[in-house]
Amino acid sequence: MKPSPITATIDFEKDGVQHGFLKLPHSHDGSAWGSIMIPVACIKQGVGPTALLTGGNHGDEYEGPLAILDLASRLKAEEVSGRVILVPGMNYPAVKAGTRTSPIDRGNLNRSFPGRPDGSVTEKIADYFQRVLLPLADLVCDVHSGGKTLDFVPFAAAHILPDKAQQARCVAAMEAFAAPYSMMLLEIDAVGMYDTAAEEMGKTFVSTELGGGGTARAATVAIARRGLKNLLVHAGILEGEVEAAQSVKLDMPDGSCYITSEVTGLLEMALDLGEVVRKGEVVARIRSFERTGAAPVELRAECDGILAGRHFPGLISAGDTVAVIGVPV
Amino acid sequence: MKPSPITATIDFEKDGVQHGFLKLPHSHDGSAWGSIMIPVACIKQGVGPTALLTGGNHGDEYEGPLAILDLASRLKAEEVSGRVILVPGMNYPAVKAGTRTSPIDRGNLNRSFPGRPDGSVTEKIADYFQRVLLPLADLVCDVHSGGKTLDFVPFAAAHILPDKAQQARCVAAMEAFAAPYSMMLLEIDAVGMYDTAAEEMGKTFVSTELGGGGTARAATVAIARRGLKNLLVHAGILEGEVEAAQSVKLDMPDGSCYITSEVTGLLEMALDLGEVVRKGEVVARIRSFERTGAAPVELRAECDGILAGRHFPGLISAGDTVAVIGVPV
Amino acid sequence: MKPSPITATIDFEKDGVQHGFLKLPHSHDGSAWGSIMIPVACIKQGVGPTALLTGGNHGDEYEGPLAILDLASRLKAEEVSGRVILVPGMNYPAVKAGTRTSPIDRGNLNRSFPGRPDGSVTEKIADYFQRVLLPLADLVCDVHSGGKTLDFVPFAAAHILPDKAQQARCVAAMEAFAAPYSMMLLEIDAVGMYDTAAEEMGKTFVSTELGGGGTARAATVAIARRGLKNLLVHAGILEGEVEAAQSVKLDMPDGSCYITSEVTGLLEMALDLGEVVRKGEVVARIRSFERTGAAPVELRAECDGILAGRHFPGLISAGDTVAVIGVPV
Amino acid sequence: MKPSPITATIDFEKDGVQHGFLKLPHSHDGSAWGSIMIPVACIKQGVGPTALLTGGNHGDEYEGPLAILDLASRLKAEEVSGRVILVPGMNYPAVKAGTRTSPIDRGNLNRSFPGRPDGSVTEKIADYFQRVLLPLADLVCDVHSGGKTLDFVPFAAAHILPDKAQQARCVAAMEAFAAPYSMMLLEIDAVGMYDTAAEEMGKTFVSTELGGGGTARAATVAIARRGLKNLLVHAGILEGEVEAAQSVKLDMPDGSCYITSEVTGLLEMALDLGEVVRKGEVVARIRSFERTGAAPVELRAECDGILAGRHFPGLISAGDTVAVIGVPV
Amino acid sequence: MKPSPITATIDFEKDGVQHGFLKLPHSHDGSAWGSIMIPVACIKQGVGPTALLTGGNHGDEYEGPLAILDLASRLKAEEVSGRVILVPGMNYPAVKAGTRTSPIDRGNLNRSFPGRPDGSVTEKIADYFQRVLLPLADLVCDVHSGGKTLDFVPFAAAHILPDKAQQARCVAAMEAFAAPYSMMLLEIDAVGMYDTAAEEMGKTFVSTELGGGGTARAATVAIARRGLKNLLVHAGILEGEVEAAQSVKLDMPDGSCYITSEVTGLLEMALDLGEVVRKGEVVARIRSFERTGAAPVELRAECDGILAGRHFPGLISAGDTVAVIGVPV
Amino acid sequence: MKPSPITATIDFEKDGVQHGFLKLPHSHDGSAWGSIMIPVACIKQGVGPTALLTGGNHGDEYEGPLAILDLASRLKAEEVSGRVILVPGMNYPAVKAGTRTSPIDRGNLNRSFPGRPDGSVTEKIADYFQRVLLPLADLVCDVHSGGKTLDFVPFAAAHILPDKAQQARCVAAMEAFAAPYSMMLLEIDAVGMYDTAAEEMGKTFVSTELGGGGTARAATVAIARRGLKNLLVHAGILEGEVEAAQSVKLDMPDGSCYITSEVTGLLEMALDLGEVVRKGEVVARIRSFERTGAAPVELRAECDGILAGRHFPGLISAGDTVAVIGVPV
Repeated sequence: MKPSPITATIDFEKDGVQHGFLKLPHSHDGSAWGSIMIPVACIKQGVGPTALLTGGNHGDEYEGPLAILDLASRLKAEEVSGRVILVPGMNYPAVKAGTRTSPIDRGNLNRSFPGRPDGSVTEKIADYFQRVLLPLADLVCDVHSGGKTLDFVPFAAAHILPDKAQQARCVAAMEAFAAPYSMMLLEIDAVGMYDTAAEEMGKTFVSTELGGGGTARAATVAIARRGLKNLLVHAGILEGEVEAAQSVKLDMPDGSCYITSEVTGLLEMALDLGEVVRKGEVVARIRSFERTGAAPVELRAECDGILAGRHFPGLISAGDTVAVIGVPV
Repeated sequence: MKPSPITATIDFEKDGVQHGFLKLPHSHDGSAWGSIMIPVACIKQGVGPTALLTGGNHGDEYEGPLAILDLASRLKAEEVSGRVILVPGMNYPAVKAGTRTSPIDRGNLNRSFPGRPDGSVTEKIADYFQRVLLPLADLVCDVHSGGKTLDFVPFAAAHILPDKAQQARCVAAMEAFAAPYSMMLLEIDAVGMYDTAAEEMGKTFVSTELGGGGTARAATVAIARRGLKNLLVHAGILEGEVEAAQSVKLDMPDGSCYITSEVTGLLEMALDLGEVVRKGEVVARIRSFERTGAAPVELRAECDGILAGRHFPGLISAGDTVAVIGVPV
Repeated sequence: MKPSPITATIDFEKDGVQHGFLKLPHSHDGSAWGSIMIPVACIKQGVGPTALLTGGNHGDEYEGPLAILDLASRLKAEEVSGRVILVPGMNYPAVKAGTRTSPIDRGNLNRSFPGRPDGSVTEKIADYFQRVLLPLADLVCDVHSGGKTLDFVPFAAAHILPDKAQQARCVAAMEAFAAPYSMMLLEIDAVGMYDTAAEEMGKTFVSTELGGGGTARAATVAIARRGLKNLLVHAGILEGEVEAAQSVKLDMPDGSCYITSEVTGLLEMALDLGEVVRKGEVVARIRSFERTGAAPVELRAECDGILAGRHFPGLISAGDTVAVIGVPV
Repeated sequence: MKPSPITATIDFEKDGVQHGFLKLPHSHDGSAWGSIMIPVACIKQGVGPTALLTGGNHGDEYEGPLAILDLASRLKAEEVSGRVILVPGMNYPAVKAGTRTSPIDRGNLNRSFPGRPDGSVTEKIADYFQRVLLPLADLVCDVHSGGKTLDFVPFAAAHILPDKAQQARCVAAMEAFAAPYSMMLLEIDAVGMYDTAAEEMGKTFVSTELGGGGTARAATVAIARRGLKNLLVHAGILEGEVEAAQSVKLDMPDGSCYITSEVTGLLEMALDLGEVVRKGEVVARIRSFERTGAAPVELRAECDGILAGRHFPGLISAGDTVAVIGVPV
Repeated sequence: MKPSPITATIDFEKDGVQHGFLKLPHSHDGSAWGSIMIPVACIKQGVGPTALLTGGNHGDEYEGPLAILDLASRLKAEEVSGRVILVPGMNYPAVKAGTRTSPIDRGNLNRSFPGRPDGSVTEKIADYFQRVLLPLADLVCDVHSGGKTLDFVPFAAAHILPDKAQQARCVAAMEAFAAPYSMMLLEIDAVGMYDTAAEEMGKTFVSTELGGGGTARAATVAIARRGLKNLLVHAGILEGEVEAAQSVKLDMPDGSCYITSEVTGLLEMALDLGEVVRKGEVVARIRSFERTGAAPVELRAECDGILAGRHFPGLISAGDTVAVIGVPV
Repeated sequence: MKPSPITATIDFEKDGVQHGFLKLPHSHDGSAWGSIMIPVACIKQGVGPTALLTGGNHGDEYEGPLAILDLASRLKAEEVSGRVILVPGMNYPAVKAGTRTSPIDRGNLNRSFPGRPDGSVTEKIADYFQRVLLPLADLVCDVHSGGKTLDFVPFAAAHILPDKAQQARCVAAMEAFAAPYSMMLLEIDAVGMYDTAAEEMGKTFVSTELGGGGTARAATVAIARRGLKNLLVHAGILEGEVEAAQSVKLDMPDGSCYITSEVTGLLEMALDLGEVVRKGEVVARIRSFERTGAAPVELRAECDGILAGRHFPGLISAGDTVAVIGVPV
């Protein structure tokens, strides 16, 4: 396989604080000899584990980029035992545009792994993480939120894995993150995900959903900051104690807990995130805005639980996921 | 002045429940003999005051359309003494597109009054409200939210008016609405607003901001539903009692309480809506996403109060209003 | 009023055959010192009446441009007594784009009269016809078809005018055109039309609708060619006899003969152009393509007559005119 | 090979009438957890052959969707011996947009077979037909028309196949369809076609071209309705007699019967669909709209026959097929 | 007339160096409470004349913005006797986009004077210069280049004015600018120009064309820097001597010296900027790229002179100005 | 592998002058049965070598298309010993649009070799050159310029090749071209280039960069014309002498001679093309246009040489190549 076209302007083996770029050549109508410059920082001292902290896997999710940029500008090399690599905007073209997918190739980075060195721009980014950055890491945390079209109660997540020792490491890291909710996920279709790429290399991997709507709140950014610092302490890269916090454990089982709309219209939720719902209750109504006087379509819960996630925009289309019920354990 | 090109498919003078359209001829490349069909309902019985209830003045604000569609499909003629005219999507092309302004002419309806019968599509809509619907009304309530780019604590509002008797009527109606917050507004630039058009005709007028972000929550829709019903009771159109609720009174003075960004980047709020802030405290930080390691630009409050409004998207541009401080009275 | 910015590269007072342009300066991002070059021909000999023949008033109607281009390349000065001015593509930016309205300013030329010399590009074109070309003409014929979104039985038309002598001249010219159908029109909203501009100057004016769908058939182009030649003979500009043909006289009364859809979906006509329909019969069905199993919305005729016009595309939106019933007289 | 990501909301093995969707997950900027909902109906009773009836393979062809939606809403399970599966809009994103190809990936579904479960949206649809729906069928009919840019005399078609017994089955089905014209096709480039996919599985396959221009006429929809019903009778799924009609047999040989334009301009046909043409006669003229006075480019027939197909729009570009001559047999 | 909605964040009456913004409120779909922030600097000391130096009147012309930004960051208050106001990007939305006209309203700022406070964004900018900035100035210099679609020999220009004393002041300032060429202009259509607005107020006004093509060369930026400094010395705002340089005097008479293309194709210049041409010589050839073997259209000079300006892009459209011949005096 | 879908309308084996097209079927929403018509000429007499001369590999580079169109319309069969195949616009969709890459698939033709017969439009063009045209040729010259976003001193180029005999042939041809500069290139990433495709077949290959900016000057077109004629003389296809001219030999070593910007802003070059620069000197400054008063970012040379290439547009983005230093040998 060909080498990655991406080159880093910093040296991941060097001690100290470095701020630089992952430089990805990109020839296009606006610049024949242009590049995409993905910001990266590396803070390293001596020997120790490596944490790879990422945000902007989707370009419209903001808690990750904000907390990682904050950490990158504060962390001192002398505080660190080992190495912290920070990439606040993985799919940088999407981050610049504020969109889930890349405006260049409409690539969803989190479905593009393992990527290709001679593929699309998004595939080249995936390939670089797959073959260069992930192999450097022991602990990987990818901070997601719901983006412009989904909203979630804030949770950290670990996956059910075939290697139970690895799973235990991941669960311990998820608990160290100390988000208000903690979710055990059994992905139905894990193909192409960054999560899967990291886990298949045996890494300790934590993901999150810390809110959504294409915004960030002070409260959710604070969760991200605390979580990332906790992870570094947990991994032994930073000294000190994990800052504990209460966390509700949730399952997000498939099928019956996902509610899909078969109609298009205005979305009227009958309850808000975190509220309790019983099987058979109305979760949402879809109203036609094309005429008055029509009865709304009612969507009902098919299981007991709390409202863990929802479609965010006021307009909803047939086929959109309206709501996700999380089941407290 | 020429007559409006808009015709209603219902008769506002007829008793009973009618659902129909305001039909606005619109010849365009996609349909030479097409029309814009703005949904409208009229529920009337006997003699009594007329309430004109509107949403979708901006097309990305959802509490108004949802509560008005709900009311339009529930209200029975025999419950009404007088008349209720309901237009859930005033700037209907914008509502269909889920955008603040019209995708046809980029018109901001709330800056287009009094409109023109031979102007742009948005101006034609304004003209129809100005010359046909507003004259029919005694009480006018236009339900706004922040839309995709602003978010507010939920409030009803009245304006400071030269006619103090009229102002008192408006304040009484605002109080009847019973939103969690109540705001007295002195508009700096009221030119072109629907509010001004209604107030200059001597109407009792209530406006709101019930949330934002281009979504609606169950809680904010409930505020809108209660508020509209309360208004109809307050006006004597419906029987019964106003459903009272606690409401914090706020002023939103100009100048020092509006915070503008002079830079572009990622927005990190330092506090959330409804939280208390003191003059001199950091309200928000703007972070460059173009490189790591740079210090954020800090924006500080220039007055004491609570965070009443904010820029919603994670990306912010130079010139955007970051935050509005409301001053409790 | 300022002079028109348009200059002709030919001299309308000169005898002979001239092919040239109406040159309209247009500074835009693609050419700071560019112009729009509207093709024009003038064929003149001696003293006699002037005919102004135009097509492309809407840019997606083809019988007019084809017949006029044909005539412009065939007509010899020695055949002519007087003058023929031919503009095959009035709204030339729209003609180039194949769209009803101008891609530059979305202007509908036939609603832009009398235009303005310092207005939009479309208004500048209208102004040039209003102040330069129309005053040169005795007989004006503007060849329309239905364009991409309408289809008609082929007809020539004259308007009911306050000056009955002028009306008689127009009717005589319409009859000379000898289209398969002849329509007397009472325009509801004649403001801004080229027709009105010509008629208010006392010109003999004939309009047509010769088909539609954004195409031209051999048969409809033949109607246009014959009609234009007949007009020139009728006016005494060409020698010879008017080539007569059978023509069904129609009225297109308002209101009940226009059928509008209040829903969006797939359009299924129940009869085709020229077929007879009785009041109460189904003219069209609108079917949802979003699901199977739903009953279509049926639209019924509200008067007796023939199907004279229809919405052409397979998709139809709420507010579109579905069909027009013409009433034979 | 991976399983299809598409799931049906109905059960093809269940007796009765079912209306539902083929649900295709589609994560995009407008909905992170969205789906494309392709309408499908299944009408089944007892044991018997399966007919798979499809429209909307190209999204701007309307006779198929209209006739199939009509059949889906009328057909009763008790009338059926066997099973009828109806998909009125195969390339549903294209159908919604009214375009030949998918607005999502510009995919031409009829060149995307056999598709891929992890490919583009269009390839996923092709894969589902290839691996799920086609194997269920005995008789397959895909109803095409010319779409927005082509127009045809209405015909049903069968292919010349290596398996002459299969070809005879297909010809018999084509004849049962009873369109005004019947065409034997030898596809030059059959790669990627749905036709080829069905035929290679040994299915009895009928295709059609029933008009075009992006519209549907009452007459052509009637041909489609009759044809589909005839097919079901012919297959023994419905009782009764095939409704016979006269059908002209045509060949559409390659090369000399296709006429291509090497210039860009306005298209003026010299004859209309169904008319007779002799070798050497002018079939069409292309006129420059950029200037008057130029001679048109003439295109002449290179074989005898009738005009079976044509370019529909008034504008034509270099490289476009202008006309197809069909040779009666 | 209403006050301008634009407010300056700096005080033009204050001594010292100030860097700030002209803040223009702009509510749009991307930010309901947004503003356009036009950079401005003011460098003032004591009493003396005011120079207003501007660039970016068209957004794709770069010598002006570069020289003015350089001057704004170097000039010290103590060097100045009087005041220098610097606006490097007048039509700031166009400057950000790198386009001649505004991407918001497609406004050409230099055809929008005197503007309107309640007009489009571009008209609001014009109005602010008309009513606020121009009245503050004694000397006005607006630095233009050819932009992306024109290229010029570098020249400064003055207009022929009715007030010969004012004209003499302007010519003296033009000569002080000391560009390689100096041009006396008689504008045909001066309506709407910033030049005209300044001149009608009696200001000393200098304009330039310093190159083009949407780029800037080191040599042309050096001309702009020297010219601006010379102007400030000439006006007595800076001390020292005007840095003289040789300048060829040119006339750019109308009509015969402008060469327009009537065809579309590839532009092949027969001579380059500054070269001598004789009447009747070929200046350019336009070649069709649609086919090989066709003869190019040749365009010939209609007067003697040098090539002073040309169409820059390789593609040229009918109606574009190909070349301008300057006549040395 | 499947045959190419492209067919030539001319016969490359026939003597004489032929002008025609490479016809590439392209079914799209605007024409279901359309084609891309790539102009091609073949001038052949008797036996002798074949030269393949191409331009428009990138669609915004003009010296090649102009010189090749000129040659194609002048060259007579009787002047030729052997064969000259001329394709002035290889990536024809890009040439029509005036863009580097294809507007259909955004393909960069010069990174698409060897192409695929069933790939995207750009890949189909590459495949046709790979498998049909290149095998016919002995000598291949592909004329490039910098396009809209780069500008170069005019040079011809040869590559360092493993086969030194072939390299010597290429160098001899480059020298025969006689451009003002001659460059020996060691491509870092030659994968996908037309150059590599030709060289791997053992062809004598010459490339050029003759200017840039999306325009052509009379002087650079003259270089291209002379160079192509010289090549044909050099190859023995035309009689006569190579027209010699002085040529500066340059190396363009990697790494230190390429200067990249890490910031976005306005580009101010400190020197112009062809000027001498010393290591450590400022080559360019990038200025923020978002505010006045900020110091520019300075970019310095890291080697001695001349400025051989530069970013052309006035706006520059982080990641763009600012300048290339050529080292005279």
